This record gives sequence, structure tokens and C-alpha cells, in this order.
Amino acid sequence: MKIIGVDHIAIAVKDIDITAELFERAFGIRLSGVESIPDRFLEIGMLNLNNTKVELVEGKSPDAAVSKFIANRGEGIHHICVRVDNIDEVLAHLKSQGFKLIDETPRSGAEGARIAFVHPGSFGGVLIELKEINRK
Amino acid sequence: MKIIGVDHIAIAVKDIDITAELFERAFGIRLSGVESIPDRFLEIGMLNLNNTKVELVEGKSPDAAVSKFIANRGEGIHHICVRVDNIDEVLAHLKSQGFKLIDETPRSGAEGARIAFVHPGSFGGVLIELKEINRK
Repeated sequence: MKIIGVDHIAIAVKDIDITAELFERAFGIRLSGVESIPDRFLEIGMLNLNNTKVELVEGKSPDAAVSKFIANRGEGIHHICVRVDNIDEVLAHLKSQGFKLIDETPRSGAEGARIAFVHPGSFGGVLIELKEINRK
Repeated sequence: MKIIGVDHIAIAVKDIDITAELFERAFGIRLSGVESIPDRFLEIGMLNLNNTKVELVEGKSPDAAVSKFIANRGEGIHHICVRVDNIDEVLAHLKSQGFKLIDETPRSGAEGARIAFVHPGSFGGVLIELKEINRK
């Protein structure tokens, strides 16, 4: 079981273009890509900050988890995504240690990744996404 | 003006040891150091996640900014620290672009770093710390 690093920091936004424009005006960083995830009512924009990425997450429906987050708390930092080498091992380990999982088994993320979320209620209020890319 | 990367992601915690124990049990990551910042009523614990760090921030007084954050919203992700090569240039640029600054001029951070905070009100609800280390 190995932690590779922080894949991205996700920010809940009302409008990807508006927040992306802030990052461009402030730091000269442009969106490296925008992706729709229609089955989760999301649109995602990625910003490359060299050692890690920032993910702008916009809900396309009031039912999207991120739309509810914004309705409750306003726009802001939403979760941290930790990249791991073997998500099945990490999930089994977390379960054995009593952590509460939002996803007991991995689901498909963007670009063929396998992802799962850990419940913030068992992790000091921090929502953590786990991500495994291209395991050999 | 250059963005080097994400120096750390800060988490507001009630008790550094309790949250650190979660990271150790979940991911085998141990605190790499704990530092007191008495003039800001803070204690800080660092966790190394390979490509970037997680900073656990505990208020030692109800007056600490992080204690007020927890009183309002509970424990959780507090800010993103962006490492820059020249903080004076970045602050001047942000000011010229109309961003609201919490610190108009840099102040001293840990280990001789120079830091400043950008107001979340002008940055999509995201509190951003800027940090410059050892400029030649």
C-alpha cells in the first residue's frame, strides 16, 4: 500500500469559467481541460500547479453533491484527492481500521482512473478522494 | 513572476494529535514536525504527502482565526498555500488586478519564509496563502 501524492485539490464553484479566470488573472494559470460527467451532473476543469493540480467542480443540477455543498457553505475548497498505487488494498485497509467509506468499492473516474471517497465524518471533517491510475 | 507549486494544503483541526493519528492509521503518514506560533496562537503539524504537504493547524486560543473557522464551520480544509518565487511581485500584481489582500506586505512565516494571505472574498471563496522561501 503506497501513497503516491496529492493528485488534486478540488474547489466547488458556481461557474468554472469565472473561477478559472481568477486563476489566470492572478497566476497566469489556464485551464488545461474541461470534462463533463453527465451521470453525476458535473463539469470539471483542471488547472496545473506544477507539483499537483486544482480541480474546479461545477454542479450542472441542484442535485449534484457539489451544488448542495455550495448551497450550504458557499463556494470553496471541497476535497483532497490522494493518489494511491492500489485502491483496493487501501479501501480494505481503511475499512479494517474503522473508517467510514462513501464508496465501498471503486468506481470509474475520468481517464480510466478508479476512484472512491472516504467519509469526512471519520476523517476530521476532510473529504478525501482516493484515485488509482493505470495499475499494472 | 513564477508559481512554483502547492506548498501545502492546510486543515483546521481541534487537536493536531487526533488528526495526525487518522493520517497515520489511514495512510501510514507520520507528523514530520510540530511548530508553535505563539504570537498567532497557533500550533502547526506537517505531514509529507510526497509531492506536497498537509498542514494541520490548531488554534491555541478562541481568538485564533482557525478557532473561529472551526466554531463557524467545523473542522476541515482551511486554505491552499501556493509557493511563488517572488512574493513582492505577486502581491503587486494581485493588487493591480483588483484582488483583495489580507496582507498587503509579506510577513514572516516558519523557517524564514515570507508569507501573505489573499482574501477569499475576491478568490471564489478560497483562502490562498502565498509563500516565498529563500529568495536569492
